[in-house]
Amino acid sequence: MLEHFFNPSSVAVVGASQSPGKIGYDILNNILQYGYAGTVYPINPKAREILGHRAYPDLASVPSEIELAVIALPARAVMNIVEQCGKKKINSVVIITAGFKEIGPEGARLEEDLARRARELGIRVVGPNCLGIIDTAGSLNASFAAGMPLAGRLGFFSQSGAMCVAILDWALEENVGFSRFVSLGNKMDISETEIMLSMERDENTRVILGYLESIEDGPRFMKAALQVSRTKPIIIIKSGTTSAGAKAASSHTGALAGSNHAYDAAFKQSGIIHAESMQSLFGYAMAFASQPLPKGPSLAIITNSGGPGILAADACDKTSLHLGPIRKETADRLRKFLPPAASVYNPVDIIGDASHERYEKTLKVVLKDNLIHAVLILLTPTAAVDADSVARSVVKLAKDADKPIMTAFMGGRRVREARKILQDHAIPSYGYPEDAIRALDAMLYYRRGREQPERQYQHFEADTRKVRQLFASVIRQHRHDLIESEAREVLKAYGFRLPESRIARTTKEALKTASRIGYPVVMKIASPDVLHKSDMGGVRVRLENEAMVENAFFDITSNIQLRQPGARILGVMVQEMIPQGKEVILGIIRDIQFGPMIMFGLGGIYVEVLKDVAFRIAPLSVEEADAMIREIRAFPLLRGVRGEAPVDIQGIRDALLRLSQLAIDFPEIIEGDINPLLVCPEGQGAVAVDARITVQE
Amino acid sequence: MLEHFFNPSSVAVVGASQSPGKIGYDILNNILQYGYAGTVYPINPKAREILGHRAYPDLASVPSEIELAVIALPARAVMNIVEQCGKKKINSVVIITAGFKEIGPEGARLEEDLARRARELGIRVVGPNCLGIIDTAGSLNASFAAGMPLAGRLGFFSQSGAMCVAILDWALEENVGFSRFVSLGNKMDISETEIMLSMERDENTRVILGYLESIEDGPRFMKAALQVSRTKPIIIIKSGTTSAGAKAASSHTGALAGSNHAYDAAFKQSGIIHAESMQSLFGYAMAFASQPLPKGPSLAIITNSGGPGILAADACDKTSLHLGPIRKETADRLRKFLPPAASVYNPVDIIGDASHERYEKTLKVVLKDNLIHAVLILLTPTAAVDADSVARSVVKLAKDADKPIMTAFMGGRRVREARKILQDHAIPSYGYPEDAIRALDAMLYYRRGREQPERQYQHFEADTRKVRQLFASVIRQHRHDLIESEAREVLKAYGFRLPESRIARTTKEALKTASRIGYPVVMKIASPDVLHKSDMGGVRVRLENEAMVENAFFDITSNIQLRQPGARILGVMVQEMIPQGKEVILGIIRDIQFGPMIMFGLGGIYVEVLKDVAFRIAPLSVEEADAMIREIRAFPLLRGVRGEAPVDIQGIRDALLRLSQLAIDFPEIIEGDINPLLVCPEGQGAVAVDARITVQE
Repeated sequence: MLEHFFNPSSVAVVGASQSPGKIGYDILNNILQYGYAGTVYPINPKAREILGHRAYPDLASVPSEIELAVIALPARAVMNIVEQCGKKKINSVVIITAGFKEIGPEGARLEEDLARRARELGIRVVGPNCLGIIDTAGSLNASFAAGMPLAGRLGFFSQSGAMCVAILDWALEENVGFSRFVSLGNKMDISETEIMLSMERDENTRVILGYLESIEDGPRFMKAALQVSRTKPIIIIKSGTTSAGAKAASSHTGALAGSNHAYDAAFKQSGIIHAESMQSLFGYAMAFASQPLPKGPSLAIITNSGGPGILAADACDKTSLHLGPIRKETADRLRKFLPPAASVYNPVDIIGDASHERYEKTLKVVLKDNLIHAVLILLTPTAAVDADSVARSVVKLAKDADKPIMTAFMGGRRVREARKILQDHAIPSYGYPEDAIRALDAMLYYRRGREQPERQYQHFEADTRKVRQLFASVIRQHRHDLIESEAREVLKAYGFRLPESRIARTTKEALKTASRIGYPVVMKIASPDVLHKSDMGGVRVRLENEAMVENAFFDITSNIQLRQPGARILGVMVQEMIPQGKEVILGIIRDIQFGPMIMFGLGGIYVEVLKDVAFRIAPLSVEEADAMIREIRAFPLLRGVRGEAPVDIQGIRDALLRLSQLAIDFPEIIEGDINPLLVCPEGQGAVAVDARITVQE
Repeated sequence: MLEHFFNPSSVAVVGASQSPGKIGYDILNNILQYGYAGTVYPINPKAREILGHRAYPDLASVPSEIELAVIALPARAVMNIVEQCGKKKINSVVIITAGFKEIGPEGARLEEDLARRARELGIRVVGPNCLGIIDTAGSLNASFAAGMPLAGRLGFFSQSGAMCVAILDWALEENVGFSRFVSLGNKMDISETEIMLSMERDENTRVILGYLESIEDGPRFMKAALQVSRTKPIIIIKSGTTSAGAKAASSHTGALAGSNHAYDAAFKQSGIIHAESMQSLFGYAMAFASQPLPKGPSLAIITNSGGPGILAADACDKTSLHLGPIRKETADRLRKFLPPAASVYNPVDIIGDASHERYEKTLKVVLKDNLIHAVLILLTPTAAVDADSVARSVVKLAKDADKPIMTAFMGGRRVREARKILQDHAIPSYGYPEDAIRALDAMLYYRRGREQPERQYQHFEADTRKVRQLFASVIRQHRHDLIESEAREVLKAYGFRLPESRIARTTKEALKTASRIGYPVVMKIASPDVLHKSDMGGVRVRLENEAMVENAFFDITSNIQLRQPGARILGVMVQEMIPQGKEVILGIIRDIQFGPMIMFGLGGIYVEVLKDVAFRIAPLSVEEADAMIREIRAFPLLRGVRGEAPVDIQGIRDALLRLSQLAIDFPEIIEGDINPLLVCPEGQGAVAVDARITVQE
């Protein structure tokens, strides 16, 4: 898969140049200088030889087969080269050239034409507007980046060329090895999803890193990520997650940024580790590339000073890790050689006069403790300690360790060499304990995610034909918003439990319906134009007798006529009053990149004021529905506080899953909510009291 | 103030040693090697000369006056030396020696004795169990630290010697200058507060940094910090803020850690900048030491690549800063020389082929824009750019700039030298945009705090005599919890509005009281033993007539007898029913380090489930009371949502201030709450419906 990009037997550089400083020179030079073993064809009509290699005027003149073409010519010239590629049967092309979608509508048109033609010719494209690609196993550097990373286990793809440059430079400084580097550019054809899948198959890649500003096909991306993350961790930094960032993002790449909530949900649901900053990305990458995953949350800290130990304990408290108890035998063993002032508990404080021998002995003992799942070694450069020797001891003991070992040697000059020793021997070395702990927490998160059983999906019988007809009729009437009775029909078709109700056009009809349903009843305006019924005075509850129903009919209709003149009034809905329960809200919002997203929260102010909501991308698995119910801060209210009975959580889950199925079945729903869903006490289900659905063709 | 510590004309080192590697050698050597200009007296009965200086057998033998003594002898010997100091009229002593409070009860006793004797002799002490002190202006390094920081503007004090070591080593690596370094040790006498005050007066110190694990006298510390922070920023990293950290902290220093909430509140109220991690501490220190404070929140970002620009914009969104609009003239001026693909808006993206000249031109133009309050320069090491030259341009332009300039040059090798150039010329240089933005945000926070007007305190008339008598009587009865009628008396004495009420001992009395108050009424058990009255069935509300009052009397008393047998029942409280309002909770909690702390939240689940509360240390100023009301997430509910009328916020403020005054007047209150305080619509005040007060002698 995409093998000709990363492992071609021959490469042509179209636009190869003789002038150092030109991109066409840099690319050719990079391919040649880092030891690529295949054949290289510089293409340039004006040159006979470049960098000691025979140049050809065009692709057609090359006598042999070409597996990969790298194009570095002005935008206007690219289409012609793609045609030539087609003729020459080159099916893998990297287009370095800028001046497409990123410069505006004209460039976008050029890019569309190019994409169409490439598709017709069966040509796969990386780029345009990119830095190129690197594969260290094949010593192929088909990019104009300055430098070549060491061979290693990290695969990196990036929507920003600059990020490639920065990360490459960082990697060279820190001696961090990479398997592949892919600059995605405008993602005209090959997107993050395919690169991710190709890295899954690449045996040299153990950890997949990505920088993204947008995602091309959300559901496909999620599906691929979920699959890949079962075997290889995927760590992604997504920019443009906030409103200010998103503004900057769309001016940068012309990509429509999905909402923050959608990305959060999508990453969570597909096992992706979300790096919050570049620093986290680097920190996580170091840990995942070199250390085994922790088998549990219990961390032991070894330190030669109290202060940093406390800071590390504080940092731990903000994660899923904890400073686990150590075994009594471990403490006893430590006590044998540690000075009396040392602490043999966690953090294990071997105090300021600790030498590297004391570090080594302590680490050896702690590593053997089977209650401990990971070890973090802190060092302050006291006079007593030789940091380099400590580093060497750690390296030695790490060889046979079956648990992750992290280090944070604090300070500057006096720990510089030690940190290099650690880094060179694949022991993650951080400047601050917090970074080490966050990285370890990410590893634990990944391990736990991977250990989860296959997700269960539930399928409900539903009258999809009826819903289809209903939506079609609404759209035929040039409406977007369903009136309540229509929304109720939709929910009924999907098996939701609804309060009994009927629209009454007159007071008399209302009285008749009320007596049929039985008092007390609820009455609500029935109008396609009134969305916030309560705010408009369009709702009356707990109507206990005929007089109250009569009054309510009058009040509701006159309120609406008064406050929203011109609103079409279809009558007043007379409804069964559900006796008791907690109000929750379920919603559907269609995200541009990921499709329908399901929302859940407690009714009223919890959603509106406190924004206490959970989101997931549809379709929801049973586990995901459960997780989103438990995710809101107000969850204890559903479980029951102060002796209250718990509500029917299974009823909420059922409703979420039905709503998810509806959202997937009908992409025409662009927004909707069930507000409130009245949840009865445990075992008694939930009732959809009111619903709003908006559709679009 | 403490001048003999930092600027002594003569120093004696008691326990000076001839053997390299001994602490007594290191200290003497440090004093001598870094150019201290005063007289130095090594004290050692076994030596005649150490490091070329004549040694004396004891302090008495020194022929001249001694202004500072540094003691590095075993713990048992220290008391005798302190006596000698007294005789020699040395009033400033640094005790390096460990083996006191930190090793347990025995050491603690030794330390107490020492403290008492020093106080009697009028001797001030830094330590024991510390690294020593450094003053760069006087070239005095009276510590056993390895190395001497450059002279600079940062003053640093630390409760952890290790933190001193780490920060010193970092400073040497990064060429960051310090004015003073103080290792506080066990804080037997001189604490963080006095060091802070001495640094306020030290003209070389412009920024005060501190690492703390505990605070000795919370109120005194807050008062001093508030004063000092008006002229110099105080940046503190406090460890042991979480439960795990606090456990580690107390095993480390034996100090009782104050609660997280108390520290948060205290720092907020005294203008302290709270650094969340060592990395933040360093990052903030760099910025505050070298750059002017931003005059406002509007940040301009200049970048040669889109991705990092978006990440920076994202980071901005999490702070008080924003990417402000730039003036049209600025955009026009930029457009003149920037390529068409560049973005002249914010972030100003001067794109990947930017040279240092383009950086310089752009920065020059942006600096002149008076809508912009701060500039962040991002650089990715592309082939086109010479990072060193960019650094030099920034240094040049920063000279005349009146706004803060920060930089984040990303990558490794290719930006290393450039970052050094910036650092050496006092331009803060960060590895990641996020760090630069957080530091700038801290500067803005500090500036805004400093610009706030003097706080206003309100004083209420109160019947303190009555409350004093009441508490005395409760304590005499060996009770801690006041019964409701007593708590009501206390609130009444402090001018709280209370619902009319009276304890009824019989049904008949209850009926009489109810008819006097007027229906409807509320009834509640009156018992010193029942704390959660509702949970026990001890409350009935909305009692509309005689029959309901009769039933309620029976129900309440039998519920309590049934559910809490043995509880003393004084009768049933019959209370006026307050017709409408929102329930809020006010509380007092006594913090060990800071004294009474006031809590505020919305009633019921908001406090109990959502933990949506605000804390401040008493006494509250009017502004602080207002701020805590606005701080809770549910505040919009008080201001009124969806057309609801706002509640009487002034009534809440008034109640908070009265409670604060009560808490300050009566330290015997260790806990208490008003739950609920029923807040009426705007202009109609608030009523304290129920209260609980716990006292202790």
